Amino acid sequence: MSKIEKVQRWLADNGQDIALISNPKTIQYLTTFYSDPHERVLMLIVFKNKEPFMFAPALETEAIKDSGWTSPVYGYLDHENPWKIIADQVHARNTAEDQIAIEKDALTIDRLELIQKCFPTSHFSADLTPLINNMRVIKTSDEIEKLKIAGKWDDFALKSGIEAVKVGRTENQVAAELQYALMKNGIMELSFPSLVQSAAHAAEPHGATSNKKIENNKLVLFDLGTVWDGYISDASRTIAVGKPDQKSLDIYHVCLEAQLTAQAAAKPGITAEELDKVARDVITKAGYGDYFIHRLGHGMGMSEHEFPSIMEGNKMQLQPGMCFSIEPGIYIPNVAGVRIEDCVYITENGCEPFTHMTKELQYVEG
Amino acid sequence: MSKIEKVQRWLADNGQDIALISNPKTIQYLTTFYSDPHERVLMLIVFKNKEPFMFAPALETEAIKDSGWTSPVYGYLDHENPWKIIADQVHARNTAEDQIAIEKDALTIDRLELIQKCFPTSHFSADLTPLINNMRVIKTSDEIEKLKIAGKWDDFALKSGIEAVKVGRTENQVAAELQYALMKNGIMELSFPSLVQSAAHAAEPHGATSNKKIENNKLVLFDLGTVWDGYISDASRTIAVGKPDQKSLDIYHVCLEAQLTAQAAAKPGITAEELDKVARDVITKAGYGDYFIHRLGHGMGMSEHEFPSIMEGNKMQLQPGMCFSIEPGIYIPNVAGVRIEDCVYITENGCEPFTHMTKELQYVEG
Repeated sequence: MSKIEKVQRWLADNGQDIALISNPKTIQYLTTFYSDPHERVLMLIVFKNKEPFMFAPALETEAIKDSGWTSPVYGYLDHENPWKIIADQVHARNTAEDQIAIEKDALTIDRLELIQKCFPTSHFSADLTPLINNMRVIKTSDEIEKLKIAGKWDDFALKSGIEAVKVGRTENQVAAELQYALMKNGIMELSFPSLVQSAAHAAEPHGATSNKKIENNKLVLFDLGTVWDGYISDASRTIAVGKPDQKSLDIYHVCLEAQLTAQAAAKPGITAEELDKVARDVITKAGYGDYFIHRLGHGMGMSEHEFPSIMEGNKMQLQPGMCFSIEPGIYIPNVAGVRIEDCVYITENGCEPFTHMTKELQYVEG
Repeated sequence: MSKIEKVQRWLADNGQDIALISNPKTIQYLTTFYSDPHERVLMLIVFKNKEPFMFAPALETEAIKDSGWTSPVYGYLDHENPWKIIADQVHARNTAEDQIAIEKDALTIDRLELIQKCFPTSHFSADLTPLINNMRVIKTSDEIEKLKIAGKWDDFALKSGIEAVKVGRTENQVAAELQYALMKNGIMELSFPSLVQSAAHAAEPHGATSNKKIENNKLVLFDLGTVWDGYISDASRTIAVGKPDQKSLDIYHVCLEAQLTAQAAAKPGITAEELDKVARDVITKAGYGDYFIHRLGHGMGMSEHEFPSIMEGNKMQLQPGMCFSIEPGIYIPNVAGVRIEDCVYITENGCEPFTHMTKELQYVEG
């Protein structure tokens, strides 16, 4: 059964007539075509028992056909009303349109109001988001192959970044070098702007790479990822420049133990919240529990914000094919920050990481 | 009156009690603090007649305080219910909460449903989007100064890109060089991935930079921008490698005339759709109207998707302080594509561009 047939089956099983799919990543997942339409409208319309169609800005329709989409595609120009064209195409098919399912995590209120005007007698109560999340949470072997290639380039980027570290260079300069090394190899897309943070700056877990200079005898934190054919990588390493103080080394080793213990515990059957607790217990026992202020990890695949979220309260059992990050962190304000992260996929009896760079503390000459 | 006071005034004038602001760009505009919270929750809550507060992931609260925000800020951990904490803070203020205004272009259906559960007796019919758009559409002199600096770096990036053009190099390699040149100067953020398209590839106006090699005797299209302190630049130039055929040169000169004519016509009083028509008439008269398949331009400032949209149907009169792109394009499938673009700001009696690179056809040796 194709992915679109799974959506059709779900519509039939849930008393729904039509699915309006508007998240560009969902459209890519179901059709292989990806584009970020920004404020323009890109939609995939799936019917319970008719052929689906795509709707896009006029300047995208050729690219959709080139991507291998063989069902109809309709375009619109900037001055036309996209919602009316979609509704006209639906009405023209003389099909039931009483129950229309939407992606509630992707559709904004203003767009739903515009759609409702074109479908005044339809109901929009059903949410496709759980279906899509449940489809996407188990990766196929094809998807895992793409994630492995993205991971290989992440290892390369980490290596390039660490080689670029030098006392007196700015964090931005180090990020520039590793990103240029990727681009020279044709890797143009990052999963997010590369993070390079030196010394106490790394204690701001959502701080950005800055013009702060790399200091001697401090840690440097890297967190970065690449994109390969729509699939992402994401990994963190923290390294030492010169001879960091004992406190910095201590939190590094606690964080490493937490990461390794959790990665060893990740296997089918354990729940997401149990896995979070495995890492958290190591850090809490060492006295740093208050400094680990985020979840252990996030699902990943086409983005770094997928299911399963590895955190307290998530009782989802891990299953083969699930992909997520294991990234404990310890952030001591005004002192240092450490994060160590691999993304992994669950196998029949454990897990395998997508990145393979050593997690033992690496030293760069100060 | 501060920007937040303008929101409070609007609430009072429109019978609203509270504004829930969730678009990160709006929050930046109103507070100067910017963060993309991804799937986490970042909100600014403004009351008609009480002090506002901010709500953010715990790992962002320090950065909010550091940004100069002096009103309360509340954080939440990943396993906590953010909507309940926001509602508890609102209820604790013993203020009216009957009418709650939201940003309908930024809030998704699932989030509104979660918010409604925490405010079961409130109404959520009023939309803040038009207010915010109308505030943002007229740029202050401070904002224009930032846009000028972003424009200066765009000129630098275009120059670096053109210098990197060489027959046999790939589009991606050229993009790599210009992006590295920016990064070496500390410009780490682009407004969008730089577009470099050679020959017929440029006839796909939303195609991406690829591993296609630069060909001799063809045009190369650049469309790129940078970010300076939250404000963007965006410009396009099309250049010649070697000696392009006459058809390519013809459409270049038609496109250039359309661009220059429209830029000369941009002044207070003309409407957005009239300005679109000024450029479109030039291209239609030359016989290429069917190949100009997008609007003339888009508003810009903190993003490239602001008001005013320069297109048919938009009767908004241009006023001093409005900023937008003027970017006619002619795309002939399988032959060539040309786009020439400056972003401008409207002055008292005309407009000024943010980018200054010549628009005469530039030749690179083939």
